[in-house]
Order: sequence, then C-alpha cells, then structure tokens
Amino acid sequence: MAPVAAGTGWRLLLVLGAAGLAAVGAPKPPNIVLLLMDDMGWGDLGVYGEPSRETPNLDRMAAEGMLFPNFYSANPLCSPSRAALLTGRLPIRSGFYTTNGHARNAYTPQEIVGGIPAEERLLPELLKGAGYTNKIVGKWHLGHRPQFHPLKRGFDEWFGSPNCHFGPYDNRARPNIPVYRDWEMVGRYYEEFPINLKTGEANLTQVYTQEALDFVRRQHAARRPFFLYWAVDATHAPVYASRPFLGTSRRGRYGDAVREIDDSVGKILSLLRNLRIAEDTFVFFTSDNGAALISAPKQGGSNGPFLCGKQTTFEGGMREPAIAWWPGRVPEGQVSHQLGSIMDLFTTSLSLAGLAPPSDRVIDGLDLLPAMLWGQLTDRPIFYYRGNTLMAATLGQYKAHFWTWTNSWEEFRQGIDFCPGQNVSGVTTHTQEDHTELPLIFHLGRDPGERFPLSFASPEYLHALRGVTLAVRQHQETLVPGQPQLNVCNRAVMNWAPPGCEKLGKCLTPPESVPEKCSWPH
Amino acid sequence: MAPVAAGTGWRLLLVLGAAGLAAVGAPKPPNIVLLLMDDMGWGDLGVYGEPSRETPNLDRMAAEGMLFPNFYSANPLCSPSRAALLTGRLPIRSGFYTTNGHARNAYTPQEIVGGIPAEERLLPELLKGAGYTNKIVGKWHLGHRPQFHPLKRGFDEWFGSPNCHFGPYDNRARPNIPVYRDWEMVGRYYEEFPINLKTGEANLTQVYTQEALDFVRRQHAARRPFFLYWAVDATHAPVYASRPFLGTSRRGRYGDAVREIDDSVGKILSLLRNLRIAEDTFVFFTSDNGAALISAPKQGGSNGPFLCGKQTTFEGGMREPAIAWWPGRVPEGQVSHQLGSIMDLFTTSLSLAGLAPPSDRVIDGLDLLPAMLWGQLTDRPIFYYRGNTLMAATLGQYKAHFWTWTNSWEEFRQGIDFCPGQNVSGVTTHTQEDHTELPLIFHLGRDPGERFPLSFASPEYLHALRGVTLAVRQHQETLVPGQPQLNVCNRAVMNWAPPGCEKLGKCLTPPESVPEKCSWPH
Repeated sequence: MAPVAAGTGWRLLLVLGAAGLAAVGAPKPPNIVLLLMDDMGWGDLGVYGEPSRETPNLDRMAAEGMLFPNFYSANPLCSPSRAALLTGRLPIRSGFYTTNGHARNAYTPQEIVGGIPAEERLLPELLKGAGYTNKIVGKWHLGHRPQFHPLKRGFDEWFGSPNCHFGPYDNRARPNIPVYRDWEMVGRYYEEFPINLKTGEANLTQVYTQEALDFVRRQHAARRPFFLYWAVDATHAPVYASRPFLGTSRRGRYGDAVREIDDSVGKILSLLRNLRIAEDTFVFFTSDNGAALISAPKQGGSNGPFLCGKQTTFEGGMREPAIAWWPGRVPEGQVSHQLGSIMDLFTTSLSLAGLAPPSDRVIDGLDLLPAMLWGQLTDRPIFYYRGNTLMAATLGQYKAHFWTWTNSWEEFRQGIDFCPGQNVSGVTTHTQEDHTELPLIFHLGRDPGERFPLSFASPEYLHALRGVTLAVRQHQETLVPGQPQLNVCNRAVMNWAPPGCEKLGKCLTPPESVPEKCSWPH
Repeated sequence: MAPVAAGTGWRLLLVLGAAGLAAVGAPKPPNIVLLLMDDMGWGDLGVYGEPSRETPNLDRMAAEGMLFPNFYSANPLCSPSRAALLTGRLPIRSGFYTTNGHARNAYTPQEIVGGIPAEERLLPELLKGAGYTNKIVGKWHLGHRPQFHPLKRGFDEWFGSPNCHFGPYDNRARPNIPVYRDWEMVGRYYEEFPINLKTGEANLTQVYTQEALDFVRRQHAARRPFFLYWAVDATHAPVYASRPFLGTSRRGRYGDAVREIDDSVGKILSLLRNLRIAEDTFVFFTSDNGAALISAPKQGGSNGPFLCGKQTTFEGGMREPAIAWWPGRVPEGQVSHQLGSIMDLFTTSLSLAGLAPPSDRVIDGLDLLPAMLWGQLTDRPIFYYRGNTLMAATLGQYKAHFWTWTNSWEEFRQGIDFCPGQNVSGVTTHTQEDHTELPLIFHLGRDPGERFPLSFASPEYLHALRGVTLAVRQHQETLVPGQPQLNVCNRAVMNWAPPGCEKLGKCLTPPESVPEKCSWPH
C-alpha cells in the first residue's frame, strides 16, 4: 500500500507544484467539498502527530494532497468561525460577535435572537451564479430563526441541524434541538435522532455520510458542479459514534468519533475516485476551532504542542488541521507554510468557480490557489478576536498578544479550565491583562507552544513589534464593525415549533417573549 | 516525488508485513546502523507533527519504513540510556546509576570515576562473534578513563568523544573535551574542533557524517557485515550546525541542527541505496532521551504533546522518535504500537545477526523483529527509573507514577525548569511525592499529556493498578541492582592527558587525586 501521510520542507513547494491553473479557467468549474469538523484539534490527526495514528484516510488525503500546518480559524468558537468561512469575513465585520462584555466569546444557542445578517453574501449564494448546486450536511449554526434558514442563504439542500446536539431537554423549559431535511424539521435530537449519552452511541455520522454520498452521486449524474459543505459534529461534546466504531479507538470515545469521521472521509474521497471526478473536485478538510480541552480527556481532542484550546486565542484555540486535496492539480505530499485562514476557503472557492469576491465590502479571505498550485506564499496577518476585542495578531512567525486571559477566576475556581495543565505564568491569565502598549510576543517557529515571550529589550522584539503594529494599524484603520448579532437572547425564539412540526405532531408552545442580554461568561 | 511520511492504523500491521524472516536466517547477516540522537524530542520530526516540517529525509525514512509512536528511552538522561542501548539492560542492572541521593539522575561528566563495567557484555562485543566490523561515530558517554575506551569494548573504530561537547574550558581548572580517532586523541573541542558558541557554527555533524559514509563504503568494499553506531550530538546544548545550515530553519538554531542531521541521514540512506545494500541493512533512528526543555526555546527541542522533558520520568522525558528502515523486509509506511525500548535495539540487533542474547543475565530488551516483520505485538512493561528509584511504569495504555518530582524547589526557584509552562497540579511536583501505595495512573491513549489522573475510586483505576502492580512486582522480585558506577567523582580522572596528547603537544597535568561523592542535584 502507499504511504499515507505527508511532510516535506516548504522549499520543495518552489520546486514542485507546476500543475496548471490553466485548468482552473476551464469551462466546467470544479466541484467543491468543504469538510468542516467541530472542535477537532490540530493534534487529532495522525499526520499531525497524534500518537495513536488512527486517521489513515485523512493521513492518506494529506499524502495525496497538501498539508497546512499554519492554518487558522477566524475565532475560537463555532458560530463566528462558521460565519467567517461562508462570508470570507472576520466575525467583527459580519456581526457575529457580542458587545455584552469585554472580550467575550459568543455563539448561537437556542435562545439567540440574531443570525447571519441578510446583507452578508454567503459562499453558496455566490456559487449559484456559476451554476453550482449547494448542499449543507450537518451543523448550520448561523442562526435558527426562519429568516436565517440555510435554504434562504444559497443552499439548495440541507440535512442537519441549526444548533449543537446538546441535550436531552425536556421540551418544556427547553426544546430538544430539531433536525431538518431542507425546509422542514424531520425530528429532534434525542427523539427521532437518538444519542445515547451513557454509551456514546449515535448513528448521526453515518446518516451525514450517506447524505453526502447521495448528493455527490446525484450531482454527478446530473452533470452539475456542486458545493458540498459537510459540517459534522461527532467530535463536539457530547461526542458520539455509531456502534461499529464504539470502543475501537485507543483514545476512548473521542477517538471513536474521530475514527468514524476518518472512515467517512475515506468513503467520500473513494466515491469521488470511483466516479472519476476526483480531478474535478477540490476538497478541503479543516475544523471550526481548537479542541475543547474543557471536555478532555474523555470528550475532548488534542491541540498537539499548542497552548490551551477552544475559547482561547492561544494557538490551541485557533490553529487547525487543514488539508487540500485535488488530485492532479494540487501537488501531492506537500506542505505549505502559507499562513491560512478558514476565511480563505470562501475566496478560494470563488476563485475555483471563476468568480471574483464581492467588491463592495472588505473580504479577509485570501485566494489560496497560488499557494496550492504554484507554491507562491503571501505575507498576511492572522487576527485573533474574542468578541470585538483584538486579542492577538500573527505576522510571519511572530505572534503578539494584546490581551491575555483564558477565563475568569470565578469560572476557573468552579473547575472550568481551558488550559488544563498548561499554565504559563503571565500568559494564561485569569484576569484580562492589557498588553496593548507592550504586547507579549512569541516566535511561533522556535516556540509553537507560546511559553517563552521574547524579551522586551531584545532587537528581535522591536523588529517583530514594528511589523505587527503596522499590520494591526492598517487593519484597525479601515475596520467597520458590523452590527453585533449575538447580544440578545429570548427563550421565545427557541425551536418550539419549526416548520414540519405539525406533520410530526411535535409542535411545542413557546413561552412569552422576554428579550434579554445574553450571558457570555468567557 | 513520493509522499514522505507515514501513518496508518496499527491494525494494518496484521494484514501487511508478510515480508520474510526466512531471509533473516540467510548466510550473510544484515548490516546494522543505529542512528542515535542526543536530546532530540519525540516532537522534533515532521512525521511526529513538528509544525515546521523540516525533516524530509527522516519523514521519508518513516514512509519507507515503520514508525513507533510508543518507543522509550531507558532513562531520561544520556549516559544511562546509552548504556542500556549497548547492554540491552536497564541502567539499574548495569550499574549506570547513582545512590548518592534519592531518585537522582546521573551521567558521565569529565570527573566521573566509573564507566561501563567490564562484566557487561556490549552489543559490538557480541556482534564480533558473527563477523561484524563495528564503528562508533560520535558520543560514547560510557566512561572516559582508559579502561572504558570503546575499542576495548568491541568497537573496531571510533571517531568522536567520550563526553558531551560542553565548554570551552580553560585547560587548567578543567580541560577541554578530547576528540578521538580510534585509540588516540586527535584534538579537543573548541580547539582543533571549533564550536562557535556565539554563532552556533561547528562542522562536527559534517565530519561525523563523512566518517559514517567512509565506513559504510569501506565495509561494503570489504564485503564484511558492519555495525555502525552513529551517535551525533548537534541537538544537545550548546546546539550547533555547519555554515550552510545556520539560519535556514524556521525553528532557530535548534532547527538548524535538526536540519543538518536530517540531511545527513538522507545521505547515509542514499549511500546504502546507491551501493545496493539497502535491503541488506537494518537502520534504526531514535534518541537518547526527551528534548531538554531547560534549554528551550533556543537550544532545546520539542516533545510534542507530551509532558515535561529530559531529566523527568514524564512522557516528555522518555518517549522517543523511533523509525525502523529495512527496504523489502520491514514493510513500508507502517505504524507499530508495540511498546518499544531503546534496549530492544540490543536484542533485535543480535537477532538480526543470528545471535542469541546472553543467557547468564537478565536482558530487558525485546526482539522487535516479530513486531516489525509480522506485526506481532508483545505485551511488556516500560520502567521509568531515576537513579535506583522506580518512578513509574507503563503497561498497555496505563502509566502509573509511584514517585513524582521534576526538580527541587531550590533549583526551580533558580530558574531550572524541566516542565516550562506545563505545571500539572499534584503531578509535576517539586518535592519528591511518594505514591507507591496509591500511584497516580494515566491512560496514555486518552491522555498522552498526563494531565488527568484516573479517579482512585474508578473501576478503571483498580483494573489498571492490578496489571501494573503485578508487572512491577515481577520486575522487583528478580531485580539485582548492579554496583552503582556513578557515585564517585575525581577531578584527577579528567581527560588531562589522553593517549595521543604527546603527538599534539597537548598533555595537561592532572591535579591531585581527590575522590568525592558526585553531586547529582536532580
């Protein structure tokens, strides 16, 4: 069998990668498959060093494609990150943030009133202009009220849920979360779509996989270019796997979930090969934010050598596994040190479709095709936000922290720890520390774990500070924050009675409408 | 180009690996090349997830061979680990430990009186019985007095040094460390063999590489089976690289050293291929102990997701990168979850040579050929010692800590930190904590970073405790500690006037002999 993982010096990029962009301009644009994981960490794949090495399909995907070790989420939390993927814009621009407190993470729980604003132009909406048929499988997370429905935002099909699979709830104080097929609810988690919290058994990944395979087959038969957004959530706590995978991992239940997803990715790539459309299909694998160490070790993954996890703006919170796969186009077995962002998938997908990104707004995503096809690296900063606070920025190998905190002492004392066993004195703080005048700066090549801040007095510090300061100033001078969408909550807007509930006899009565400020503790 | 790294589920081992042991019994035994790194960490190779991915040759070696993610040193420090490699025995048996304090690490500095005991049977001594010609290139570290000379212990050739490349010294209070060619000193570090501490420039890795290549060519021409023990030390602080590699790494000077070694490994493997003896040569790559985090980030490496580093009995101190390469014999691109030990290289090498290990003493090393050729995994414990104290033991996926400490509060307050930014409350202690009655137990699959001890009350804890306790009892019941070799120091035994000094006019006058207890602070 072929070796199944990748790793080369980045210099090789300049030598290889002669595969042609010419093809990109060819008549029928390639299909696009974005495989987005939920709370999966950088360190969860064999090819990224996970010691149990249980991701042979993803490792093979990397060996056949290109690995990005320096690829970032746009936020350490799910909803804003997903909004960024589909808009190509930082959450601070799209409004996917809160101003209810300083430097607070926010998302779209059941009681959220907001969602993706109508003015935002979403990737599937734009791809329709190039004749794509679009499907989302899995978690939407950009708002659950009717006006935010994915089929109103460019998707032609949906099988999945607007929210996380939290629960079970009692359907009185709080309804169980609905699962949709297209416009209508077809059941709820823990009811028609069971998740056994005790055993971890759920066959959702199997269902999501079948949805993906069916869609690919149908679009292939119809000879239409397609966009598949496969947003599975088995690695988000409560983690789950179907019976054949339960108990098979060396890593426990979280590993079972990873193994099942890996198997599914293998099936999707195999189908593309078997249909002989692998060379016509661009596939990208990544995750929405870092592993949730709060749920480790049983329900959380690994961020490898990086500091902390989900909810934080340390590398563990936002550096993601990332693999591009496009046989015959993206050269195989390569590593790109391009600083990448989940927002780049927006711009790159448009580029693949022969479309220009919207010109009437700031787009943060880069077109990664030059990096992927020709090894052309582009300098660009990475911005790490929490709410509307710019916590940190990376330029080249230097990362500057303007604010540090993980979570409050109050939470921490209650056992909520986003950095278990990873306290770095003066870095992982439990009060919000203002370093905007004199940021903590790390060299991520020598010190990927952010444990050794550069000396303020060193010439290297001054050099790094100059570069990052300039990038931040340019960013902030032109920044127009969007209207914050994640400030107001209201139990009345929960999914009490989504369309389709009447067919199932599952319409619930909403409580009285009481809008209030959402509570975002960290 | 071919993909250049490896990673598959361990189950594949059972399917693949039909390559034949028949060949092992063939007339001419294979050549054996052991590539032993110095203070290189598990996380330093691209194939183990190092984000800069600067080890294309080692990654390719793994893609062409077998990767061991669960491979251990026999000690968290250099000399005992190297003694274990060449004897197949735990340092507690060979005497490579101290009793000067409880749970203290010891090695062979210039003033050490002891060394590898005459009664120990060393791998090169035994291989001579099968007609091998043996060479050590680089660091010996098993004693520097005349009676411990490697050419007295089975090696036919030596180019390297008995000690680390510490210095420079003034040749009055302390001599610079000698470099030998065979029986005689041919110069000293910082004198004939310069190391520029300011720039990090030294061409030693190039010299060591040339020595290896020349030896291979000569033995090939002579049609003799050979054993090459390539023990380079560029990744031990003070780290160094030759000019073409300086400043080329994304990781700083430490990375420069790794890149040069990686390049050298590539040259050695290429030569084997070019001479058409790759299929007749077993090559194994590993390191003597975990990365020295005390020297990080500029002079120390990475232990990936593992806790702490060199000097400690946490995983970061003793889990090592390990790759077996034997084209046509060891199946390519495979991962083995065999718990392996550096001591296994002794037994495995003898097995390759058609020799049985000595039967008159306990040998701790396993023959890894069944694991490598047929995927046969063997249950076995891993013991983690510090001095003569059994600190921890691993059986299967469970690791039990009987004693915890990193180093003393006194040292720690002086800035000596073996676990920077990795304090785990109750685990990384600065007092020696006795857990022998109720060990801390971790599941290394779910929690490779040793951050979440199992609950003492859980059935899993009791199950794990039972297994580990039995293994430890069996170990301790038969254990006969060797005479400790690392207790006595004496400045008079330093290399003041090694053989050959007279030719160089470099004989120094030793001071008065004053034997004293060596000081082993941690």
